[in-house]
Amino acid sequence: MSESFSPLINELINALRCLPSVGPKSAQRMAFHLLQHHREEGKQLAQCLIESMDNIKNCSRCRILCETDVCKICDNPKRNHAIVCIVESPADVLAIEQTGHFRGVYFVLMGHLSPIDGIGPQELGLDVLEARFAEAEIKEIILATNSTVEGQATAYYIAEMADLFNITTSRIAQGIPIGGELEYVDSSTLAHAFMERKTIIRE
Amino acid sequence: MSESFSPLINELINALRCLPSVGPKSAQRMAFHLLQHHREEGKQLAQCLIESMDNIKNCSRCRILCETDVCKICDNPKRNHAIVCIVESPADVLAIEQTGHFRGVYFVLMGHLSPIDGIGPQELGLDVLEARFAEAEIKEIILATNSTVEGQATAYYIAEMADLFNITTSRIAQGIPIGGELEYVDSSTLAHAFMERKTIIRE
Repeated sequence: MSESFSPLINELINALRCLPSVGPKSAQRMAFHLLQHHREEGKQLAQCLIESMDNIKNCSRCRILCETDVCKICDNPKRNHAIVCIVESPADVLAIEQTGHFRGVYFVLMGHLSPIDGIGPQELGLDVLEARFAEAEIKEIILATNSTVEGQATAYYIAEMADLFNITTSRIAQGIPIGGELEYVDSSTLAHAFMERKTIIRE
Repeated sequence: MSESFSPLINELINALRCLPSVGPKSAQRMAFHLLQHHREEGKQLAQCLIESMDNIKNCSRCRILCETDVCKICDNPKRNHAIVCIVESPADVLAIEQTGHFRGVYFVLMGHLSPIDGIGPQELGLDVLEARFAEAEIKEIILATNSTVEGQATAYYIAEMADLFNITTSRIAQGIPIGGELEYVDSSTLAHAFMERKTIIRE
């Protein structure tokens, strides 16, 4: 931080760096942007931050972030509560909701298994999930964790857990993205797409 | 905003968009980043925002942003108060201070002349600057506004003002950046660099 700025400005620039992918230059630009022309918005943001940090918790059924005890999706009687889609983050829920193709409910892990970072089954709420499996309301789970090594490992761990309760388990399909050109697809995806090829059924 | 998120989360995502170059996706990522693992930092940021928005004002001498009546540079008796460098923004002060080559003081316009946006001499504090010219303490001004059309226009306007008070006026040099390769320099800069070529003095 520079001596040319007053201590309070330096403090603000530093505080803004808690936001993801905000470095010293961006933080400085943000601080001046707010101070020069947008003080009211800055204050509103502060209010909103305090309220959110204090009041937002995890849904007691699916662990998504919300300010109520049970989230809107879990609380909706029109959703199919027998099918549960398991995802890593709230942003994944949004992405799936936007497709409009899934009418079941979700379970949000808020991460993936990563023993090196101390993230085990407990941290992902798999005890809560197991309790829900035991309730016998769930008939099917769809594993929609990321296609990364950690995401795959987490999916397999949950699949084994579900197997003990005789729950139908599936993993979302992996392959070439729709509209994707073969030339630009990485070789492991392409190899996987060849292995998992589907026979075309002639009518 | 999506219905999948609770109202308070949507509100937070919306509020974060007051930051410059933060779109809906980045705002969502910032909100989840803070909510999932950095609630304390989020609250600190909020506190800091409130304090800054309420207490930071303009230095009464140079108009830079600071929480005191007069900024550290204007208040420093070791600086040469007879030479004033005129810049557009506080970030420019930082950039010049980092060179370590200027020991005078600054005057920060907080913008440039832009009649279409309603920014005239008054909005840039040129009345304050004129009052300081009249005090006769200032012997020289260096115009370090940006090399844009608006920056140039602002510089010429101030130069004419200074002329009335017989103050020595200079404009920072324009040309090829140090270490710049001719191949990649734009043609107007290159043309200017040819016109303003300097005779090399042999000793």
